[in-house]
Amino acid sequence: MTYCVGVKLDEGLIFASDSRTHAGVDNYAKFCKMTVFENAGERVLVLLSSGGLAATQAVINVLRQRAAGEPPHLGSVASMFDAANLVADAMRAIERRDGPYLEGGGLEFNASFILGGQIAGEEMRLFRIYAEGNFIEAGSDTPFLQTGEAKYGKPILDLAVTPSATLEDATKCVLVSFDSTMLSNLSVGMPIDLLCYARDTLAVTMKRRFDAGDAYFDSLKHQWIAGTRKVFHELPALEW
Amino acid sequence: MTYCVGVKLDEGLIFASDSRTHAGVDNYAKFCKMTVFENAGERVLVLLSSGGLAATQAVINVLRQRAAGEPPHLGSVASMFDAANLVADAMRAIERRDGPYLEGGGLEFNASFILGGQIAGEEMRLFRIYAEGNFIEAGSDTPFLQTGEAKYGKPILDLAVTPSATLEDATKCVLVSFDSTMLSNLSVGMPIDLLCYARDTLAVTMKRRFDAGDAYFDSLKHQWIAGTRKVFHELPALEW
Repeated sequence: MTYCVGVKLDEGLIFASDSRTHAGVDNYAKFCKMTVFENAGERVLVLLSSGGLAATQAVINVLRQRAAGEPPHLGSVASMFDAANLVADAMRAIERRDGPYLEGGGLEFNASFILGGQIAGEEMRLFRIYAEGNFIEAGSDTPFLQTGEAKYGKPILDLAVTPSATLEDATKCVLVSFDSTMLSNLSVGMPIDLLCYARDTLAVTMKRRFDAGDAYFDSLKHQWIAGTRKVFHELPALEW
Repeated sequence: MTYCVGVKLDEGLIFASDSRTHAGVDNYAKFCKMTVFENAGERVLVLLSSGGLAATQAVINVLRQRAAGEPPHLGSVASMFDAANLVADAMRAIERRDGPYLEGGGLEFNASFILGGQIAGEEMRLFRIYAEGNFIEAGSDTPFLQTGEAKYGKPILDLAVTPSATLEDATKCVLVSFDSTMLSNLSVGMPIDLLCYARDTLAVTMKRRFDAGDAYFDSLKHQWIAGTRKVFHELPALEW
């Protein structure tokens, strides 16, 4: 499995992804699922990958190769909508190439992405692109998008991720959401890659990896547990 | 779907179940999923049902009819282990009767239960009985058992439900776990039936139903959201 989250706040965007890939519990590995396309001062695009690793790596390779060639590509398009369509085009190209062979082995093409960022002249935007290449965009009613093992971590995001939340508070919330997910699903694992993007900066200035045993992450986790136990204790008692 | 939780604390047991049944989103209804077998001063047994309503109702009818006849039955057995076996026997009897007809319609027998309680002379015990009639028992490492839509509500139970938690605090936690689940899965719905059993009392003294708009439930929910947002805000900020 995988767990990826993209958040769109008034203040900026948050992206986070785990790094575990596996083919059964007896075969797991670490791969980074976050890819950044940056042209500082002009655009920042972040892609979070879920699904089969061969498929997502192939899509990213195609996007990178195209970005070095003739426009249109992720470095040239004028809108995030066009960028999402380019990701979909790359996914469909890989599916056309590999799909029939996967079917021969009883498998199917399986890749999906969260794409977010900002291009100069446009507002920040955040999309979830499905395996078929169609996509949805986050809005103020639903300011976060998840892929992979989304259920364990969702209630915690629901608590504190609103468009007006600060980048700082929502980031803590996203990290706690990862901790909750990893506690219940072994197929989601550290390290966690985190990127926070402050609106209109058009540059990556806050990017960080959390490995197992990270002092900040562990402290956050313990203080969250202690804090919420205190909240439960202080909630009004039920009268029978 | 359904959401049921059974908790075993040092102080007592907690049982909670939602009341929504459905066959597609265009066909849903309310049915109580909590059944109590009580002989005050001698035994309290609580059964929470998940699965097909025809199956779970049939099992409960069989158990009730048998309890009015010759032992062994739920009112006579000397241990919770024997009680769990009786539930399994009733499930298997219904499956033998209905299973082949369900298969004819492309369906399968689908019923599972959480069973907990205390019989005089024995400690409190809590079981989860699978559709096949085999079962597991909660212990100090895993003091709660869930059925149905378990993922959304689990991280919140993980936060505060430990064997040494008070019945009062763990009850608030269970209710918040239901709220989180209902927020994300429409097939889990109010009213919520709640029963708290205080160790060695051998009687039901705390049983309560929460309907939509319940003042205590709503207040708990709002104070929980406010409390956790404060916790997020007070957690140490990430330094980049």
